[in-house]
Amino acid sequence: MKTLVILSGGLDSTTLFYYLRSLGHDVSAAGFYYGQRHRKELDAAALTCDKFGIAYPIVNLKHLGGMLKGNSQTDKAVAVPHGHYEAENMKLTVVPNRNMVMLAAAGAVAIANGCNAIAYGAHAGDHAIYPDCRPAFVQKMREALALCDWNPLQLLTPFVAWTKGDIVKAGIVLGVPYEQTWTCYAGGTNPCGLCGACIERAEAFACAGAVDPLLQK
Amino acid sequence: MKTLVILSGGLDSTTLFYYLRSLGHDVSAAGFYYGQRHRKELDAAALTCDKFGIAYPIVNLKHLGGMLKGNSQTDKAVAVPHGHYEAENMKLTVVPNRNMVMLAAAGAVAIANGCNAIAYGAHAGDHAIYPDCRPAFVQKMREALALCDWNPLQLLTPFVAWTKGDIVKAGIVLGVPYEQTWTCYAGGTNPCGLCGACIERAEAFACAGAVDPLLQK
Repeated sequence: MKTLVILSGGLDSTTLFYYLRSLGHDVSAAGFYYGQRHRKELDAAALTCDKFGIAYPIVNLKHLGGMLKGNSQTDKAVAVPHGHYEAENMKLTVVPNRNMVMLAAAGAVAIANGCNAIAYGAHAGDHAIYPDCRPAFVQKMREALALCDWNPLQLLTPFVAWTKGDIVKAGIVLGVPYEQTWTCYAGGTNPCGLCGACIERAEAFACAGAVDPLLQK
Repeated sequence: MKTLVILSGGLDSTTLFYYLRSLGHDVSAAGFYYGQRHRKELDAAALTCDKFGIAYPIVNLKHLGGMLKGNSQTDKAVAVPHGHYEAENMKLTVVPNRNMVMLAAAGAVAIANGCNAIAYGAHAGDHAIYPDCRPAFVQKMREALALCDWNPLQLLTPFVAWTKGDIVKAGIVLGVPYEQTWTCYAGGTNPCGLCGACIERAEAFACAGAVDPLLQK
């Protein structure tokens, strides 16, 4: 299986990269820059690809991101909210239709490069806040991607029913170097510990009974 | 219905724009630049929007287009083929996954602007060459777009079972100024008359029993 992983450099997609390699996939990767506040995640992803001698093309969707106002990720007028993911204010972090855009662009890159599958790190913890992480949405995109080219393109989402804790547990077994991942929305020298992404990451390590190496640096 | 039309400035999407207006939709428009050889279609679309006092935002996907080699639309190393659409060499004009990318990006723009529908000019004549114009693909995208946000986003494709001749027939009744549309892949001062797009356009006008005003200029 020649599989293109949507690799953001965060915890989920980096674990996915290692997981699919461990299953014997011929793994390539691509990233997406949509005007997010910082590129620390992408830098982390580039390090991962470098380690395995593969390219890390980054699709620049900044122009589209700049057209999407009203969310904290691509609209600098909207502050990054603090608090738990489930809270109402976390809806401010939702970039409209982000996953469909990423899956569509990844599909294009995959077809142009002769891949027969794309993979992304959708997981159970995202369902409550991101409509485009719901299993029903993922299934429809799977069916659409199977028809978007004359050769069916598979969509792999092995973590879709996993919690972030499950992902970290599996990643520790696989030896994922979590010090080479980035999650915090704020993008400072150290994780802020206050944004939804930081809180969720801390919960994932707690669930897995592990310590986040990024906090030990 | 607040509807965002994917308006390329060609025959199909311009007719769609007029058609939905005639049905009472509150129509807005967006274009896509993916590094195609010329911007004459987009210029034509801008004229149409100007006429009705609406904006014509163009989503710049040139960076993604540049990553997709092997097709005549975004890879300058591949020449524009001559001949009929059904011919094998016309496959060179297929930009991988183009329609999914456009629908996904249009969905993002539509959600950010409070639209409840997006529309595009898929029609029966495209099915044989473009996998992502097939009714089955369109239906899956319709189902995915209905789930990509908490509020369902509708996908309208009223021409999906129409021929290009049917589209021109309807457009003439609606008074579509076809001299303000552009179809030719080559982008010269006048249509080349040799590329698949020109041949198909000529057939459409012939089917509708009409003369293409672009050829009378």
